[in-house]
Amino acid sequence: MSAPGLFDEILARGAARDAVSDAAWLAALLEVEAALASAAADVGVISGAVASQIAGACSPDRVDAAAIAREAAAAGNPVVPLVAALRSALRADGADEAAAAVHRGATSQDVMDTALMLVSRRAVAVVAGDLAAAASGAAALAAAHRDTPAAGRTLLQQAAPVTLGLRAAGWASGLDAAAAALRGWRPAVQLGGAVGTLAAFAGHGTAVRSALARRLELDEPVLAWHTERGRIAELAGLLGRAGAAVGSVATDLVLLAQTELGEVREDVPGRGGSSTLPHKRNPVGAVSARAAAIAVPGLVASVLTAASGHEYERAAGPWHAEWAPLRELFRTAGSGAAWLADSLTNLVVEPAAVRASLEVTGGLLLAENVTTVLRGRVPDPKALVTDAASTSLDTGRPFADVLAEALEGTDVSRAELDAALDPATHTGESAALVDAYLASRTEHP
Amino acid sequence: MSAPGLFDEILARGAARDAVSDAAWLAALLEVEAALASAAADVGVISGAVASQIAGACSPDRVDAAAIAREAAAAGNPVVPLVAALRSALRADGADEAAAAVHRGATSQDVMDTALMLVSRRAVAVVAGDLAAAASGAAALAAAHRDTPAAGRTLLQQAAPVTLGLRAAGWASGLDAAAAALRGWRPAVQLGGAVGTLAAFAGHGTAVRSALARRLELDEPVLAWHTERGRIAELAGLLGRAGAAVGSVATDLVLLAQTELGEVREDVPGRGGSSTLPHKRNPVGAVSARAAAIAVPGLVASVLTAASGHEYERAAGPWHAEWAPLRELFRTAGSGAAWLADSLTNLVVEPAAVRASLEVTGGLLLAENVTTVLRGRVPDPKALVTDAASTSLDTGRPFADVLAEALEGTDVSRAELDAALDPATHTGESAALVDAYLASRTEHP
Amino acid sequence: MSAPGLFDEILARGAARDAVSDAAWLAALLEVEAALASAAADVGVISGAVASQIAGACSPDRVDAAAIAREAAAAGNPVVPLVAALRSALRADGADEAAAAVHRGATSQDVMDTALMLVSRRAVAVVAGDLAAAASGAAALAAAHRDTPAAGRTLLQQAAPVTLGLRAAGWASGLDAAAAALRGWRPAVQLGGAVGTLAAFAGHGTAVRSALARRLELDEPVLAWHTERGRIAELAGLLGRAGAAVGSVATDLVLLAQTELGEVREDVPGRGGSSTLPHKRNPVGAVSARAAAIAVPGLVASVLTAASGHEYERAAGPWHAEWAPLRELFRTAGSGAAWLADSLTNLVVEPAAVRASLEVTGGLLLAENVTTVLRGRVPDPKALVTDAASTSLDTGRPFADVLAEALEGTDVSRAELDAALDPATHTGESAALVDAYLASRTEHP
Amino acid sequence: MSAPGLFDEILARGAARDAVSDAAWLAALLEVEAALASAAADVGVISGAVASQIAGACSPDRVDAAAIAREAAAAGNPVVPLVAALRSALRADGADEAAAAVHRGATSQDVMDTALMLVSRRAVAVVAGDLAAAASGAAALAAAHRDTPAAGRTLLQQAAPVTLGLRAAGWASGLDAAAAALRGWRPAVQLGGAVGTLAAFAGHGTAVRSALARRLELDEPVLAWHTERGRIAELAGLLGRAGAAVGSVATDLVLLAQTELGEVREDVPGRGGSSTLPHKRNPVGAVSARAAAIAVPGLVASVLTAASGHEYERAAGPWHAEWAPLRELFRTAGSGAAWLADSLTNLVVEPAAVRASLEVTGGLLLAENVTTVLRGRVPDPKALVTDAASTSLDTGRPFADVLAEALEGTDVSRAELDAALDPATHTGESAALVDAYLASRTEHP
Repeated sequence: MSAPGLFDEILARGAARDAVSDAAWLAALLEVEAALASAAADVGVISGAVASQIAGACSPDRVDAAAIAREAAAAGNPVVPLVAALRSALRADGADEAAAAVHRGATSQDVMDTALMLVSRRAVAVVAGDLAAAASGAAALAAAHRDTPAAGRTLLQQAAPVTLGLRAAGWASGLDAAAAALRGWRPAVQLGGAVGTLAAFAGHGTAVRSALARRLELDEPVLAWHTERGRIAELAGLLGRAGAAVGSVATDLVLLAQTELGEVREDVPGRGGSSTLPHKRNPVGAVSARAAAIAVPGLVASVLTAASGHEYERAAGPWHAEWAPLRELFRTAGSGAAWLADSLTNLVVEPAAVRASLEVTGGLLLAENVTTVLRGRVPDPKALVTDAASTSLDTGRPFADVLAEALEGTDVSRAELDAALDPATHTGESAALVDAYLASRTEHP
Repeated sequence: MSAPGLFDEILARGAARDAVSDAAWLAALLEVEAALASAAADVGVISGAVASQIAGACSPDRVDAAAIAREAAAAGNPVVPLVAALRSALRADGADEAAAAVHRGATSQDVMDTALMLVSRRAVAVVAGDLAAAASGAAALAAAHRDTPAAGRTLLQQAAPVTLGLRAAGWASGLDAAAAALRGWRPAVQLGGAVGTLAAFAGHGTAVRSALARRLELDEPVLAWHTERGRIAELAGLLGRAGAAVGSVATDLVLLAQTELGEVREDVPGRGGSSTLPHKRNPVGAVSARAAAIAVPGLVASVLTAASGHEYERAAGPWHAEWAPLRELFRTAGSGAAWLADSLTNLVVEPAAVRASLEVTGGLLLAENVTTVLRGRVPDPKALVTDAASTSLDTGRPFADVLAEALEGTDVSRAELDAALDPATHTGESAALVDAYLASRTEHP
Repeated sequence: MSAPGLFDEILARGAARDAVSDAAWLAALLEVEAALASAAADVGVISGAVASQIAGACSPDRVDAAAIAREAAAAGNPVVPLVAALRSALRADGADEAAAAVHRGATSQDVMDTALMLVSRRAVAVVAGDLAAAASGAAALAAAHRDTPAAGRTLLQQAAPVTLGLRAAGWASGLDAAAAALRGWRPAVQLGGAVGTLAAFAGHGTAVRSALARRLELDEPVLAWHTERGRIAELAGLLGRAGAAVGSVATDLVLLAQTELGEVREDVPGRGGSSTLPHKRNPVGAVSARAAAIAVPGLVASVLTAASGHEYERAAGPWHAEWAPLRELFRTAGSGAAWLADSLTNLVVEPAAVRASLEVTGGLLLAENVTTVLRGRVPDPKALVTDAASTSLDTGRPFADVLAEALEGTDVSRAELDAALDPATHTGESAALVDAYLASRTEHP
Repeated sequence: MSAPGLFDEILARGAARDAVSDAAWLAALLEVEAALASAAADVGVISGAVASQIAGACSPDRVDAAAIAREAAAAGNPVVPLVAALRSALRADGADEAAAAVHRGATSQDVMDTALMLVSRRAVAVVAGDLAAAASGAAALAAAHRDTPAAGRTLLQQAAPVTLGLRAAGWASGLDAAAAALRGWRPAVQLGGAVGTLAAFAGHGTAVRSALARRLELDEPVLAWHTERGRIAELAGLLGRAGAAVGSVATDLVLLAQTELGEVREDVPGRGGSSTLPHKRNPVGAVSARAAAIAVPGLVASVLTAASGHEYERAAGPWHAEWAPLRELFRTAGSGAAWLADSLTNLVVEPAAVRASLEVTGGLLLAENVTTVLRGRVPDPKALVTDAASTSLDTGRPFADVLAEALEGTDVSRAELDAALDPATHTGESAALVDAYLASRTEHP
């Protein structure tokens, strides 16, 4: 784990950053070269001893990463200098047969793509784990506030009561679904040789490929996918979905933490201060999660554009164009998930503020419910309620009083009216919905 | 089916255009309102007779689409004027009870989202169908050219021999996988009422929701997903993947149709001419498919951005922001799939041109194979072959002759060398790979 | 002006929609063909009489738009069938020489690109006009509320006082700059013939091109730009900037209109109601402007991707790929500008609510100012103020009281403290900044 | 200059990478803090001696970058810990007054945004310089090959002759225009204090701002632009345009370098080899430039999305969301420009291959010209030529022979026909266009 970059703790939070780092990539490339030799030995193409020598050379601490990076440009990818370095090292050890056997039959892209799958598998697990942690934080809020009435809002206008639990269950549902979808992604081995025919394996190609897939625990597609980037496009889409799930929840948190609402705050000592404003308590976690979500869709587009034009057997640019946006996508979506998990886990709900929001309109929030209650009791309930709401909004008089006046001469009593205006008893099926959602989580963890 | 727009036959080809048209949307909105009434009747909330009256009113030819469109802006969506129009029509028919029961308990977004699911289900089927048709075209080429050697190219440089069949099988595999992934998408019913609590259903909410899901054959999620847009983000990702699959194949076709290669052409009488160049035979299908693929990733990003910021119970902009990009995404990805199916179905392979490409380098294409053959026969086969290749490239002398000279004094005979340079016998496991892929298609059609 | 599509009044508001409609495109294509003939006559290549005959035929009501649309696919663009239709019409009129002279020397892309410039010039004017109207609305608010103190917010937390005028001047500045940038875009004539050499003009190419540019009042670049799409990319960037300017202002409006703040509302009778919530007053204009802004960046990406891969003399897909995203970009950015102009023009500020927000924290908003005032008066003013703020936030006691207690024993009087906590006198240089901005608008209208 | 990352030499080529590195950012942040103190001294707010002490502390080698990075997350940006570190350092030196004066009046975003302007100014200069170098490479090719006929291609089909010079001039024109546009971007100072009112400057705010702008040679906008991100959006658009210019030229180079065409190659010893294919001469520069261009549009979209939703006085996520995509955009667009400059500078044109391409169709390329020549000489020249072209394409007989046969009995001689089919004399106004473009470069370098 190297020192963080200047913005990394804000924009590349969490473990995804290391999972897709240069070090992780180099380790994966070496893992693939070692496994390829072992697979060749499994099939009998090379001896087990030679494979062991190769595996021994494939150690990050025996490779000069900076040199590899500098030399990568000459061939357009880091595998060419890496293989050269492995061969030199083996030759220096007198293992000439092993030197000759390194990388045999494979093309650079075989190793890069398979390493990308290893890197991505680990990064996917990290991002999915952080999404799940965020979901669990939301689910805990849903359970704790199953019956807490709150102002439900549409188009940022108060609309009708909800429960905090229902809203939090909704958060959990999006995060759970995004995590589950990510976990459904299946990495695959890549082995085709220069043009996908496995020609340089002298008839043992599919056998070596199967052994390699088995050793690395990767799917084995029927064909090489050097220019069929469906699983890369799929991965980008899934990370896009993850970003969207994060962004919507983080937006709610930032809104609920507004000074004027104050319904929630992040309680992390030492965080959220300002350089000039001593009283600020910024919801840094949710803000940073939003920042991540904002950057995600463009990165998805970059990966998809790269995936859209792979030529012939191996591409002239689109392949290289994948590496940076996909890495940045993992870093960014991972950061969003990590920050959101942090935010939700440290979230404090302020019940008094929640209640205050609920009362700010003086009952207008129950207008739909009043309409429902009056159906069949007065000639045109919607018109009556709409008129009363307008009067209340225009004059500032409490909605309840205006309504009561309008209902004089009907058989609707003030008690009935007050009941109709009690948010706690008009949250519909919220409690049952929360229970059902939490139960579904338990069943499919 | 209305008249095409000026660019529609080029940029919105195929049946997806109509599947997401205004007419399709209006029909879907009416279908949802009718089904909602029927679902309420199923549960006993309204009578079957009232539901039938509502269903009767929900007919596109009884609705003034232009008026709905004009009035949609006042409320921010077309459901509000549509419901008003339905109520007016029913009242005009004397069906006051039905007029009052229309849309009962639902919010506009319930109807819009469920209609979006219906529209999308049909559009997904169209796009997946066109992808599958394109895949079948490619698979037919793979079968027909299973053993036809061709120049394999990496970074647009000739690299080693492949078979046309293997390349075409690769095309099919990407298109098949994109179609299968799209078909795995599952639309879901949306019913939550104003803020997702189902409060206006007076306790019958989940029951009505189940009935509605059953009637429309949609999944029934535990919670309303007014602001949890995972399935929209997922859909965008899948269409992005479809576009990528189309784009890569179309790029190959455009390249293979280059005048200097001429390995393939689209044979569609009357198409592909030029306003000024009488000899042009433009591969219009593949070109148009590429055009579609280029536009797709940005549209995916727009949908994902919309999905990333839904506030609270219903969003203040992000929801509206979905409609146009998602429609355009279907039109565009659908266009790409339709054009590619057209192109692949009408594709003519020119065997002489394929052969000519294969011979253009005088054997250099087999350099990797020669290296393999020479392993153990000469001290440093790769250096020897690389030198010979350089000499051939620099002097223009045939690679075979240069090699033969370099191998004088070794025990490698000219006959061995010629065999090593025969592309037809050096396509590796291509034939078996094609067979395996075609077999896998039959098993999972 | 045709009937609006189902979502057009929401998502493609304003005059941009018609400026880029099929009818506008067809008129522009005809205008270019007519001007091309006139330019040829200017140079003496054809007679004025022939040019007049051609111009006479170039009338939208003499062309079957639906037929053109249907036939466009065969050649990949609508100019080919359009030219054929013009020739037929002229031949039917016995004007064979004119029929032969139509489109002479030009390629389809010359006509399409020049028409795109005409269409874009008009659409740019519309969008810039709507941006300017929105800016003027904001500037009027800035003037009216030059001295109205309000809660300034950072990260959605109250931070320090501003004036409404300063915030509104900031809105105006972004919109003004976006409009000015758009107006700086310069459309150019396209004329190069099949491959940009002007070969089919028999030596008169650049002369005809100059005459065409003069007639259409377009810039005349030195070279054909069939595959040099810099001005298209620039246009996309400018529309992206416009969308960003709109989005930020619209976001502020939606936030200020929140029920709990209620600092502003859109006052448009009959708009903003809900299908189920009689009391809702949704800020439909700002919401719709936000929806537009959300969709813009992806469309910019699509146009840029298209611009990034034009091959050789004329492109195989990237050119076609421009048309739909660029049209949609104009429709969408134009919609955002139109809606925002509508919203700002109809905006009502609620002074009492503005004041209430300012007082909601009991003076915490002035914390930075208190720190400034205390500098040199107490040992560590920032620590003292931070402690007081924390105590106030934690206990709910008014910040002023906590501070007063903390300052006992110092020479800071309560009167000084109260002055330090008066927002109206602590808006810094806001008034002068507003004046300077409004003056700069007058100078550069 | 630190060691390159694993993919940096491929995907973040050139000097832009260092211009936007962590080290460059840190240096810029310190430069701004120092200049801010000096500006305060200029205005008389602090003494020159204090300003000097602050400037002395603002040295990268006195700051622990890793510690800043680690602490940045607590406040959401690196300026907060940086200011704390500066104050500590000054206090440790006994410069308490200077410690108190550091950062006075400013907010973190003032420093971050102004530093971003400094970083961007340098990075813009680098990218524009590399674009200009690429343009000069293209212009040199245009001059050298002013009269070299070549196959002009549309939709990747041979269409009509061009000159290499004209095509290369077209490349130069796009790159020149992109460089000029970038150079027109104007960075601006940011200074507003916490909420843009300059309140903490005690009346000296605009004066300090002017002094700061003067010292850093930045524009001084009337208002703070904390949430008005027009110039950021503009910058993203300009970098998007740069990427598009690079991508189109690089695509041409990759196509021209195809084995079957071989019209150009990159001549860089030791580059372009393959791990397995000894004969490969991959155009690594052009391929890498394309890879960069592919990634650019999505990054532009990310920056624009961030710019589209800045709330109130300072944003809750959108601001943070700028940093990573904008940096990546500079790295990527800069890499494309650097690689393309490398490729064009090292480009070798193969005249024989250019000629061979021109002859591959046996004269079909001149079909348009023949039609022009025959006008007035035969009844329906286009039909005659089209028929001859079809016959030639279908039978493989030389176009010239088929035409000659078709013209028997007319007064068109074989000599006339051969002249009409000579590409060298049918490149239209190419030479004059090249001259005009090169002259325009000299005038506006």
